[in-house]
Amino acid sequence: MSKLSVALGIDIGGTNTVFGFVDKDGTCVAESSIPTNSSESAEKLFERLFPKVDAVYQTIAKNYYLVGIGIGAPNANYYTGKVELPPNLNWQIVDVLQIVKKYYDIPSAITNDANAAALGEMKFGAAKGLKDFIVVTLGTGLGSGVVAGGNLVYGHDGFGGELGHIIVKEEGRVCGCGRKGCLETYASATGIRRTVFELLCNSIDASKLRNVPFNDVTSKMIYEVAVDGDKIALAAFAFTGEILGKALANAMAFTSPEAIILFGGLASAGDVLFKPTQKAMEDNMLNIFKNKVKLIPSALHNGNTAVLGAAALIWNELEQVPTNETAVENWDVM
Amino acid sequence: MSKLSVALGIDIGGTNTVFGFVDKDGTCVAESSIPTNSSESAEKLFERLFPKVDAVYQTIAKNYYLVGIGIGAPNANYYTGKVELPPNLNWQIVDVLQIVKKYYDIPSAITNDANAAALGEMKFGAAKGLKDFIVVTLGTGLGSGVVAGGNLVYGHDGFGGELGHIIVKEEGRVCGCGRKGCLETYASATGIRRTVFELLCNSIDASKLRNVPFNDVTSKMIYEVAVDGDKIALAAFAFTGEILGKALANAMAFTSPEAIILFGGLASAGDVLFKPTQKAMEDNMLNIFKNKVKLIPSALHNGNTAVLGAAALIWNELEQVPTNETAVENWDVM
Repeated sequence: MSKLSVALGIDIGGTNTVFGFVDKDGTCVAESSIPTNSSESAEKLFERLFPKVDAVYQTIAKNYYLVGIGIGAPNANYYTGKVELPPNLNWQIVDVLQIVKKYYDIPSAITNDANAAALGEMKFGAAKGLKDFIVVTLGTGLGSGVVAGGNLVYGHDGFGGELGHIIVKEEGRVCGCGRKGCLETYASATGIRRTVFELLCNSIDASKLRNVPFNDVTSKMIYEVAVDGDKIALAAFAFTGEILGKALANAMAFTSPEAIILFGGLASAGDVLFKPTQKAMEDNMLNIFKNKVKLIPSALHNGNTAVLGAAALIWNELEQVPTNETAVENWDVM
Repeated sequence: MSKLSVALGIDIGGTNTVFGFVDKDGTCVAESSIPTNSSESAEKLFERLFPKVDAVYQTIAKNYYLVGIGIGAPNANYYTGKVELPPNLNWQIVDVLQIVKKYYDIPSAITNDANAAALGEMKFGAAKGLKDFIVVTLGTGLGSGVVAGGNLVYGHDGFGGELGHIIVKEEGRVCGCGRKGCLETYASATGIRRTVFELLCNSIDASKLRNVPFNDVTSKMIYEVAVDGDKIALAAFAFTGEILGKALANAMAFTSPEAIILFGGLASAGDVLFKPTQKAMEDNMLNIFKNKVKLIPSALHNGNTAVLGAAALIWNELEQVPTNETAVENWDVM
């Protein structure tokens, strides 16, 4: 039986580092994870990670070739191969691709998690066949991957697609970046939590959320009480959607996308978020864009979405290369 | 003597339609113009234009081959070849490339004037060698051409790069597009005129501009009294630069450009505009972009800038085609 090729996708998160072997069609044939341990160095992480990766690969090596390694990580730079001052890791500036090369001599690439998500949607998900679209990841922060003319917009330095840091309110909420009023201080899991507490202050409506401390309120909790009719939670989603929709209406003016795809934890809230976002988007966009831009949820479902995105990065790189030539059948973990 | 190739660049403006024959290096070897006559149809315009074009071509035909026609026009769509509801022309929706084909069977392409300007800067001007930059044209309105990874961002429908219609002030100035607070209502020749009149109202400073009716104030006049120390005019440039700089700081978050190039009438104001724009840009950009993005004036000087841009469009198209194969030595004007 001839072997099939797979790409290794690795997603480095603040809590867990997840990896999986993903075939050309976006099926994850094996996956696992280790705790990231954010206080240790990148070298130590990979020292723990790769033996585990190898062990999982051994379970599928009879049927699969490994053709490359794609990595998604916060503040990762596609051009330099480095991760620079990641917000949730004690890494400073680390040349990740150089570390990877010590272990595996196969094609490898790295980019930030939102760009990986955009490539994942383009190869396997909601953006299949689209050449102009934006993926917005609504997690702890707001990330984005902008695709124009079929190419991911990396920018001249690898830092394209930072829509989370568009300033949407002058003198608005303090942002972790040191400025005020950035989109992600409103439209993200932490942003909607801040909105809930603003509403708890300004309104006198009863709410289950009045019994929970700030640090314990999650976007999932806000969603659950919202679908139960909690007025504060519903108002928080409406406000989040309005700010997000207006920002997306402005975003269209840059790249005129065919679709905007919402991805990540907060995006799974569905209608309570999508409806106000869509309305604000349509109400605020330039006439020529009206009724042309789809707002759709992520369609990455066959495994961990971040792993699929990271694997898509390497599939994208290898697109023109016959996979057998770059296949590595036997590999050693140092 | 062997002939050299030239592209015909045509810029259709509200007042004049200018054309020129531009060689590969961006030198305009012959140019001329006709009045546009905005009330007549597109067909009539080209009926008047092409005999004139042909007459000018005859003066250089001994030494030059014509390899293609590039056209810059307001609201022109690169994908469809059409001009759609141009603001200053009585055209409705016109298939311009189809009209051109009736006269000349050579490669032709059309795009809006700002995109043409961006291609002109990339081939012949301030963006030579750059792959990620934004050209902002400050004329009656504000246009823009966004280049990412070496490619002009047309968007899925040909309407990418409409930065003039980013909303920068909620409930701000009424815009011709039917919305409020668009960037071009502040940062453009008409925008700075509006600002002057807002300042004449709010301030009690003396100003030469207090003696001129609204409809007679031009950006050139504002510039001239500004360099003469007129407080109102200087404040108007400072305010324009602040709004523009903040918008450009946000624009960076999309495509992380290496440079932003200011083009057009208002941009020739130099320091009185560039200094406040640069300051607001640096003050408001995300840390990772600081001190990396150049703000520079257009460097298209060897002829009419819009004609160079239009010609660059066709040079860009023909880049991979050996020019002799597509050259047309003898052509007929119908």
